[in-house]
Amino acid sequence: MGARLTESALYGHLWATDELRAIFDERERLRSWLEILATLAEAQAELSIVPLEAAEAIRDGASVDALDLEYVAAETASTGHSTLGLILGLRRILPPEAREWVYYGGTVQDLTDTWTALAMRRVGEIARRDLGAIEDAALDLARRYRDTPMLGRTHGQAGSPITFGLKAATWADEARRHLDRLDEGIPRWSVGQLAGAVGNLAFFGDRGIELRRVFCERLGLGDPGVSWTTTRDRPAEFTVVLSMIAGTLGRIGNEVAQLQRSEIGEVREPAGAASVGSITMPHKRNPEVAEHLVTLARLVRAEGGVMLEGMVAEHERDGRAWKAEWIALPEACLLTGAALSFGRRLLEDLEVDEEAMRRNLEASPFSTSERVLTALSPALGKHRAQARLQELLERARRTGTTLEDALLADDEVRARLPEGLVPSLAHPDTGGAGAMVDEVLTRAAAARASRPGQRL
Amino acid sequence: MGARLTESALYGHLWATDELRAIFDERERLRSWLEILATLAEAQAELSIVPLEAAEAIRDGASVDALDLEYVAAETASTGHSTLGLILGLRRILPPEAREWVYYGGTVQDLTDTWTALAMRRVGEIARRDLGAIEDAALDLARRYRDTPMLGRTHGQAGSPITFGLKAATWADEARRHLDRLDEGIPRWSVGQLAGAVGNLAFFGDRGIELRRVFCERLGLGDPGVSWTTTRDRPAEFTVVLSMIAGTLGRIGNEVAQLQRSEIGEVREPAGAASVGSITMPHKRNPEVAEHLVTLARLVRAEGGVMLEGMVAEHERDGRAWKAEWIALPEACLLTGAALSFGRRLLEDLEVDEEAMRRNLEASPFSTSERVLTALSPALGKHRAQARLQELLERARRTGTTLEDALLADDEVRARLPEGLVPSLAHPDTGGAGAMVDEVLTRAAAARASRPGQRL
Amino acid sequence: MGARLTESALYGHLWATDELRAIFDERERLRSWLEILATLAEAQAELSIVPLEAAEAIRDGASVDALDLEYVAAETASTGHSTLGLILGLRRILPPEAREWVYYGGTVQDLTDTWTALAMRRVGEIARRDLGAIEDAALDLARRYRDTPMLGRTHGQAGSPITFGLKAATWADEARRHLDRLDEGIPRWSVGQLAGAVGNLAFFGDRGIELRRVFCERLGLGDPGVSWTTTRDRPAEFTVVLSMIAGTLGRIGNEVAQLQRSEIGEVREPAGAASVGSITMPHKRNPEVAEHLVTLARLVRAEGGVMLEGMVAEHERDGRAWKAEWIALPEACLLTGAALSFGRRLLEDLEVDEEAMRRNLEASPFSTSERVLTALSPALGKHRAQARLQELLERARRTGTTLEDALLADDEVRARLPEGLVPSLAHPDTGGAGAMVDEVLTRAAAARASRPGQRL
Amino acid sequence: MGARLTESALYGHLWATDELRAIFDERERLRSWLEILATLAEAQAELSIVPLEAAEAIRDGASVDALDLEYVAAETASTGHSTLGLILGLRRILPPEAREWVYYGGTVQDLTDTWTALAMRRVGEIARRDLGAIEDAALDLARRYRDTPMLGRTHGQAGSPITFGLKAATWADEARRHLDRLDEGIPRWSVGQLAGAVGNLAFFGDRGIELRRVFCERLGLGDPGVSWTTTRDRPAEFTVVLSMIAGTLGRIGNEVAQLQRSEIGEVREPAGAASVGSITMPHKRNPEVAEHLVTLARLVRAEGGVMLEGMVAEHERDGRAWKAEWIALPEACLLTGAALSFGRRLLEDLEVDEEAMRRNLEASPFSTSERVLTALSPALGKHRAQARLQELLERARRTGTTLEDALLADDEVRARLPEGLVPSLAHPDTGGAGAMVDEVLTRAAAARASRPGQRL
Repeated sequence: MGARLTESALYGHLWATDELRAIFDERERLRSWLEILATLAEAQAELSIVPLEAAEAIRDGASVDALDLEYVAAETASTGHSTLGLILGLRRILPPEAREWVYYGGTVQDLTDTWTALAMRRVGEIARRDLGAIEDAALDLARRYRDTPMLGRTHGQAGSPITFGLKAATWADEARRHLDRLDEGIPRWSVGQLAGAVGNLAFFGDRGIELRRVFCERLGLGDPGVSWTTTRDRPAEFTVVLSMIAGTLGRIGNEVAQLQRSEIGEVREPAGAASVGSITMPHKRNPEVAEHLVTLARLVRAEGGVMLEGMVAEHERDGRAWKAEWIALPEACLLTGAALSFGRRLLEDLEVDEEAMRRNLEASPFSTSERVLTALSPALGKHRAQARLQELLERARRTGTTLEDALLADDEVRARLPEGLVPSLAHPDTGGAGAMVDEVLTRAAAARASRPGQRL
Repeated sequence: MGARLTESALYGHLWATDELRAIFDERERLRSWLEILATLAEAQAELSIVPLEAAEAIRDGASVDALDLEYVAAETASTGHSTLGLILGLRRILPPEAREWVYYGGTVQDLTDTWTALAMRRVGEIARRDLGAIEDAALDLARRYRDTPMLGRTHGQAGSPITFGLKAATWADEARRHLDRLDEGIPRWSVGQLAGAVGNLAFFGDRGIELRRVFCERLGLGDPGVSWTTTRDRPAEFTVVLSMIAGTLGRIGNEVAQLQRSEIGEVREPAGAASVGSITMPHKRNPEVAEHLVTLARLVRAEGGVMLEGMVAEHERDGRAWKAEWIALPEACLLTGAALSFGRRLLEDLEVDEEAMRRNLEASPFSTSERVLTALSPALGKHRAQARLQELLERARRTGTTLEDALLADDEVRARLPEGLVPSLAHPDTGGAGAMVDEVLTRAAAARASRPGQRL
Repeated sequence: MGARLTESALYGHLWATDELRAIFDERERLRSWLEILATLAEAQAELSIVPLEAAEAIRDGASVDALDLEYVAAETASTGHSTLGLILGLRRILPPEAREWVYYGGTVQDLTDTWTALAMRRVGEIARRDLGAIEDAALDLARRYRDTPMLGRTHGQAGSPITFGLKAATWADEARRHLDRLDEGIPRWSVGQLAGAVGNLAFFGDRGIELRRVFCERLGLGDPGVSWTTTRDRPAEFTVVLSMIAGTLGRIGNEVAQLQRSEIGEVREPAGAASVGSITMPHKRNPEVAEHLVTLARLVRAEGGVMLEGMVAEHERDGRAWKAEWIALPEACLLTGAALSFGRRLLEDLEVDEEAMRRNLEASPFSTSERVLTALSPALGKHRAQARLQELLERARRTGTTLEDALLADDEVRARLPEGLVPSLAHPDTGGAGAMVDEVLTRAAAARASRPGQRL
Repeated sequence: MGARLTESALYGHLWATDELRAIFDERERLRSWLEILATLAEAQAELSIVPLEAAEAIRDGASVDALDLEYVAAETASTGHSTLGLILGLRRILPPEAREWVYYGGTVQDLTDTWTALAMRRVGEIARRDLGAIEDAALDLARRYRDTPMLGRTHGQAGSPITFGLKAATWADEARRHLDRLDEGIPRWSVGQLAGAVGNLAFFGDRGIELRRVFCERLGLGDPGVSWTTTRDRPAEFTVVLSMIAGTLGRIGNEVAQLQRSEIGEVREPAGAASVGSITMPHKRNPEVAEHLVTLARLVRAEGGVMLEGMVAEHERDGRAWKAEWIALPEACLLTGAALSFGRRLLEDLEVDEEAMRRNLEASPFSTSERVLTALSPALGKHRAQARLQELLERARRTGTTLEDALLADDEVRARLPEGLVPSLAHPDTGGAGAMVDEVLTRAAAARASRPGQRL
């Protein structure tokens, strides 16, 4: 039970998933660091930089379970060095012949940046998987409600009708572009770091470049080509893409929360997780998850800003920028992981109330005005039609009649209106909404077909 | 060992102090929540809203040690309600006569906002104490080095001389204004919340207003006058003041780090905590703490932005904004607490190398040009004097002579220069630096005298 | 017609007021700069640093109308120096005896920081005036609608009733604290800058400190005590206070926009400025001004972040941070000025539809559940009462009956309920809403009484 | 001369280029809007939605020169509608038969979003061109200084040697990835908007989808597939990519400014634009342009944050988010354009002082410690070698001898060191620096070869 609510026994589940935690948990982080150190030793053995037996002993002995973590923590604090405590702890558990060869020529940043690259790749893949599911769920909603009319709302005001499918299609459309961004970005971010003290790998003589190649390859990471100790566009871009993903989920969450308003009631988040309403107001059912997606989006965005600021890094290493990454990047991952998980559940089990949509549409008698305008415009001219329609709407509002009656009461309008239009006004005209849904479905199918390996 | 590096066994000390952790630690937070609930019950008993014995039983029984925290956590997750798990856990450990009277009429936000107010006050006082010590340390540096000349630098370029005391005085000056801000802000932020379901306290009939008064008074908090469930300027201002404090410490840290550059070497952060240099480059001694202050400033600032965004909150409760506070405000407190602690140690034990300052000043032979300009201006006119001086400097640079020689070689200049100026150029003229130090010392003394209770 | 929409002939009125523009307009800025230069010369004449006739000639001749601005602009670009173009332009229009004495010992930052202080004071006073009017308008709404019941809404869900007066009172309450912040901050920000090349005023020998005092006094600004060339907490705090003010106006605007939703319709922004609705949907009336307040809040907040970042400034002058202020601070002033002006009009002419409030309240039959809970709790125990009420609400929902009928149909409940409660449920219980309104009115009156000069 | 310094006659050149201004200038924006309206009319004529002669008359008559802009501005202000003023102005200058057919079925967002897409494409191409030149300049520096040794610096402390070419190669490397991001992003952002009132194109009956296709094609934009009125990931991503580009330029500028410090003096920004130094300190030459790049990076980043926030947009149109884009996106474009232009000049004419680099390296006698460590490690073991080296360095520091002498004075060390190492220490070992330069050159060449059309 730490001091951060994000780590709380009570509330931690709101701020990360277990899957994400398992990546960033300290033990697991140390385990991954040891794995990197073992791989480094093996790569060095391959190039005859360290003895093969030393590499094997490191691989065998560098186990987080064997480490005395209290000792490591104490040495970390007392030396004030980020990895010396770990190395001292390691030396205690490694056989003598390996002790001098562990972390051979490595630096803190080689270790932590390479680990960050592994984490970025891992989190990128989780995001891809969850975004794929979110796209699926949104496409499914788009398909199911392709022709379900509901009020379109602009500036919070009732507008002309759309379909719920159209709204869901825009969610899928946005998720799809994030999938593209991940496809493009993951290879870009997933590169190892082996830079040495100042980025030139001089410790390894003329074998540094080759060592980096082997090291990266063994970890399944790309070779950066050049050290990136203060070239931080990769982790910055990664975090910003997470911010954007969280932003999309924030948009969806906010939309659900607004449409769940008591006065609207067109959708409801699934009862699931947040099953108890208000204690003091037992009648209420709050869109807890939907709102939470907005909260998460804000927090991730703040971390994105920290990472972008860190791009202005100085010389060959800049602790000011780099150590801010240590906090901001994992935080963004954990929070986005939570957002993806909540967002997925939200969409997969969203309750859609078509009846409420219909009711709200009917309660907004002037929502057909665009349609009337379409009909009158060719005859009267659009601008004249607008002016006339404004008068008629005003009259209808004042006299409490329907727009239909107002239209029929106007001689010129009646003469100009196409046969049968006025009666047809009862049926909302959702225009190209369905066709746009089809287009989004088609594009998503094409994208998947062209990248068969995309989905995990 | 959580998933956040801030909670790491190895690195946690970099991101919070133990004192701050003790405020935000989950057990302590729960303890404080129970204290608030007990106080609420007592206030309610005072106004005959709940039976006195129930209040006494709550006071006696509501102990975090007695709580089954696993049960509380499980119920929190399964109900999806922020406090229901706790209430259920409490009911199990309270005697039957108290169970129905705990959290009577209260809401999540009453509990968490009141706790936040207590935390803001507590952290504000810690900040006041540490800033006072930081002001002391800066004043002490200003006093000691009042007349120690060093290069002034603008745009990173060597300029005219200042004194190190002047630089330290600007640190004290800035700290002083933060103390003023805390003096003004702490009473503003330190108000309780008792709002009920929608802010009107209707649950308590006509006794709500009086209950809030008693409740706040018992907790030593101000009475807000009106519910502030979506009126978030107080926590936003608090967090922004922390951002500003961290910003000042970031400025000081950055200054130390820059002056500690190998090529400058005028100050050094105390060896203390960070005693091991680079592993791969054993000759190095990094300004770890100084840099870290910049890192912390960035992270706190990001939280300040989240809090300001949360001011645009909706209706009578807005989970989107409010729950972001749950993360951002404690994080800002913990990080600022670390910054205050590091900053204080940095200034109290700062190593100042007067010899290096002198050496750098001498190595910058043109740093006296402003002084020459002052002397020439009345005679030649300032703009003509500037032009002439530029020529002389250019000539000295080209011919590798000193500015003194160049001046003496110019007939008109020599004729116009006051008697004795050229020889005096060897002594740097630090102008009003000392007098400004005195002014800062005087103002600080006056501020303290006028607010005797200010220091903890 | 510039490249920024903020300066657009068509849209400029959305992003600043004429009053604010008149402060920051380039001609006016230059006029103010010349005024500062003339004051500097006069202060210097007072201390016999420059000849009196030179100071008088500068005062008489340094007129923006006489300046050849094209020449100034061309020289500014070609020299790459921020004020040299201006000085060269000035020298052309000043009589010969004054030319060498203008800008005597001054630097760019002396000029621009002093101007910034004047602008901060001016904008602070405008903000104080407008916030006073906004507080007035909110207090007036609070008074008028003290007892007008409306739905309280939490998480967007219908809750228990409040009064519209209570909501307006929270607006006034927040504005009042901003007035306090301005009262505290304005003297803190309103200090002149006279620092010279590196902050030590060495150009002026031993008269620098006295010169600064006289210079500041003549401009009606405070004496900073010590140079603040890289001590930027003042402009940072100023901008953040503007961010907070804009945040409050954003909250008010957002609230109005949400309550103006077609499905709610409880308030409407005044028709005034934005009189034409949608062209394609003639029935709509958008909350243009209300939404715009949220837009402005976002933009001002971003500038606040830039200013906070600038607090980490280096050495004796740091162009990186300081020149970002040149953009961010005026932008924040202009945008906040627009927000204050729009916000004031919004509140002063807000249309409140009490009938709609009543209608929505009645349409939310379960909004009385808190009241029933209050009544049942003493008898059944709060937690049991909650559980029972949840059942009854569920039953009422299912069977389509009212909560009243469900209550009356339950024997135990009926037995326990106080006499007359059920019939009284038709009257919404707004609890302490009215009393809180009174408290806010009382506090505001007291604040004004204690600071009679506060209002402009 | 507006109220924004960015639009200043004196300082405007610092905040945008003429080329960028020509895109966003109000007249040009209106010209582009009219072009879009003419294209819409032509597309509608192609589909027989409007008469061909009307479309032709709009194409011929919709000229910004013919518009009465004062009238347009006055009507914009009085109607409070974003485009109605323009339409009214247009109707006055169009022949009667065209008046009713202009802006037929269009909405403000159709016009402004489509214009934004055109601007994003245009600015993206400018960024691509300038980044290409920046990559060229950085590659050229990398090539020229491939083997020029200089101090590597970590945490501001002198470290082991690198080459200046390696540093420049990391700049090219980062620019290259931005080119990739632009290649990927430009087609994603460059899509038109034709959504109608609520996104369903109902005004156009069953021809809406086809109309959008033709409209986009005629403008050379992609067809979005589905309306994106509140799907704002595209402009958000675009602006964030600009933030990243500006961040890279900020890094380069900051690096130059730091290396230009008087105490370092290894590079200098070209004298060009900023040719006058300090007025009060005539000896100084400030890195004005280099610092300015950092300033610009901060300002662009702030706009990026506004755009990301705007992704959480509501329903079918959300003025709060959308209108913030109107300011933030053009501002980011203008500022980034300035940064690209300054950055390009900075790199193309950067003055590199190889002699100063050599001098600083020699003045840092312990910079070879990594090399010694490499040599001692195989013999003594790395951790023992480290400890021994620390002792020797300490001894050398204390006794004022060189590291070479200290090494030769130690029997064991001397015995273990490879033959000839100690004398070779005078030659700095820059390890794989040159090889990394080669790798960056190779990759850049390959990237260009594979995308021949990439450069403008």
